Amino acid sequence: ISSKLPNVGTTIFTTMSKLASDCGAINLSQGFPGFDCDPVLVELVTKHMKAGLNQYAPMSGVPILREQIAVKTKLVHSVDLNSETEVTVVSGATEAIYAAVTAVVKQGDEVILFDPAYDCYAPAIELNGGKPVYVPLETPDFSVNWDKVKAAISEKTRLIMVNTPHNPSGYVWTSEDINTLVEFVENKDILIVSDEVYEHITFDGRKHLSLLTHLVLRERTFVCGSFGKTFHVTGWKIGYCLAPPKLTEEFRKIHQFLTFSSATPLQYALADYLSDPSHYLTLPDFYQKKRDLFCEGLKNTRFEFSPAQGSFFQMVSYANLSEESDYELAVRLTKEIGVASIPISVFFSNKKDYKILRFCFAKKDSDLIAALDKLQRFE
Amino acid sequence: ISSKLPNVGTTIFTTMSKLASDCGAINLSQGFPGFDCDPVLVELVTKHMKAGLNQYAPMSGVPILREQIAVKTKLVHSVDLNSETEVTVVSGATEAIYAAVTAVVKQGDEVILFDPAYDCYAPAIELNGGKPVYVPLETPDFSVNWDKVKAAISEKTRLIMVNTPHNPSGYVWTSEDINTLVEFVENKDILIVSDEVYEHITFDGRKHLSLLTHLVLRERTFVCGSFGKTFHVTGWKIGYCLAPPKLTEEFRKIHQFLTFSSATPLQYALADYLSDPSHYLTLPDFYQKKRDLFCEGLKNTRFEFSPAQGSFFQMVSYANLSEESDYELAVRLTKEIGVASIPISVFFSNKKDYKILRFCFAKKDSDLIAALDKLQRFE
Ligand SMILES: CSCCC(=O)C(=O)O
Ligand SMILES: CSCCC(=O)C(=O)O
Repeated sequence: ISSKLPNVGTTIFTTMSKLASDCGAINLSQGFPGFDCDPVLVELVTKHMKAGLNQYAPMSGVPILREQIAVKTKLVHSVDLNSETEVTVVSGATEAIYAAVTAVVKQGDEVILFDPAYDCYAPAIELNGGKPVYVPLETPDFSVNWDKVKAAISEKTRLIMVNTPHNPSGYVWTSEDINTLVEFVENKDILIVSDEVYEHITFDGRKHLSLLTHLVLRERTFVCGSFGKTFHVTGWKIGYCLAPPKLTEEFRKIHQFLTFSSATPLQYALADYLSDPSHYLTLPDFYQKKRDLFCEGLKNTRFEFSPAQGSFFQMVSYANLSEESDYELAVRLTKEIGVASIPISVFFSNKKDYKILRFCFAKKDSDLIAALDKLQRFE
Repeated sequence: ISSKLPNVGTTIFTTMSKLASDCGAINLSQGFPGFDCDPVLVELVTKHMKAGLNQYAPMSGVPILREQIAVKTKLVHSVDLNSETEVTVVSGATEAIYAAVTAVVKQGDEVILFDPAYDCYAPAIELNGGKPVYVPLETPDFSVNWDKVKAAISEKTRLIMVNTPHNPSGYVWTSEDINTLVEFVENKDILIVSDEVYEHITFDGRKHLSLLTHLVLRERTFVCGSFGKTFHVTGWKIGYCLAPPKLTEEFRKIHQFLTFSSATPLQYALADYLSDPSHYLTLPDFYQKKRDLFCEGLKNTRFEFSPAQGSFFQMVSYANLSEESDYELAVRLTKEIGVASIPISVFFSNKKDYKILRFCFAKKDSDLIAALDKLQRFE
């Protein structure tokens, strides 16, 4: 059997989480909360399971959850969505991204990707016969250089993959970014997949601008969201896709054959929980405190950094300190200092090593403090 | 946007379940239990959620669940599996099938499908650039005509899709079927996806023969299973794939980018529950009673049928009674008589109408009795 993904090995997330656990290190590598979700959520799941909601959900998601997602979108972005035709619940944002790409990418289509990018985009494109076209982001802030995007767009461009707030850098798109994208795609046959899983995690008064908020983008975009990231339940694997009716129709045709539907009692619990907007409106504050705590402590280390604009990741540079590859250093820090991180070279198409590590600060304050204490020992 | 699946509309399962609910009919259409799961399962989920098991599971599934799946396979089939390298947990058997097909089917590959077949096989093949090659099953029992399989195999055949016990017919593969398949694929470059979601539901002392049990098949087969069907929790969307290490490696590369991982607390609960084999060993008896009840009642209707060998579906023929299409009759029975079923033409590649309906008997006895009472009124 010859592999369809010959270059895919064990993900760095699996590798580093395992190394962290083997070494008893504090795990700031894989992006998941190191604390538990609200116990209310657990009670809600139990209630719905006990009420017998354990059989297939409708293929597109339970209506009350789709409705609550529309309510949230209205409240946060002042955008009206039809929950019947524009909202689909899926088994995590990864499924949303795979299904959206599969719905539109055909053999030979070009797909523009920013570099670095989260690891699931390129395989989704390639498995559907598409050709990834990489546009490097600008160091040190990983902002978009729009001249490079312009140069990358061709007659064959079918799709652009957007990710804001960006993983691994935390860069948050500005209204200029949105407006420039509009200019580039207006009147063209180009669609967009926008990975917005960190939509509720932005800092210093910055607001996440969903691609939904611009009419020209809205009519051509699949917005992918994640309850795992928003409600501290990455293990529940419930996400969603927002797209105009024609795109949603094609999206659902794919979702139907990928997983058909997603866990029913979890969907009902999330619907109930969403009905109190404070559950997501308090998230920026919650994570700002963690980011600030982490960045304050980083000042006493020898790493260089500029505080993340969004997401729950903080990048640090050690170019001034060591010649080691980022992978070597990530492993060494885990083994010798006891703190696991992600070497960001893994997010680059060419695995280029900028001597940057990514730390996840979605962890208990006590763990962040302990990790900082250890990192301060690194010279 | 031009559709990649132009012929896919709303599934018959969604259509008939909605019609049933709109008409207040008894829903014997979509294949899901009309009764609840064991409350012990619900308690187990609650326990694990409360213990904080709400973050990402390992990509391949939680080790204890993979281990319990291996234990079950040993107990039921006397086959030893390595749970590290041969067992993967996924978000339902639909994902298992899609991932297995995606792992091996390339542009231009031919894939042999039996006709009629469950509705997710052909789209999975087509979305991966494969060409479905249909082999009609033999009426009235829907057994395999192996001469026709032989004629369908070509140099380009990459994969054969097997489904035993078969949906919609309930046909259970015999050891002759297994042995003939062995003859046809031995020393050839042909792989197999075996949908065995009704593995624990066989009747009249028949035993489900997994393709795993033959060495020649085992080394080339992805076996797809479903906890939804086995433990009455179709809405939990946890399934699994059993395959030799090299196939599992490719399977996981796809699963990683389709959904990455599956709901953690549900996985832990299923692992605990599996540790008592009576939970699945009692299933044939449980469903035999329902099949017998249903078939006894059918004798007092004008339908013709022969009792299902396996699965929780019973086909009936009305060729002697009406010229209506099976779809028309299914709709009319729902509206006028108050019992919903599935017209099996939807399972055929050419939508051929054999004047057969499929009833799901995974329902409460009281609902089966009430449905039979209504069906007896149909002349
Ligand atoms: C699905 S495991 C990776 C989690 C994540 O989003 C990250 O660490 O970047
Ligand atoms: C996924 S809905 C269909 C359920 C089923 O297996 C059937 O009715 O055949």
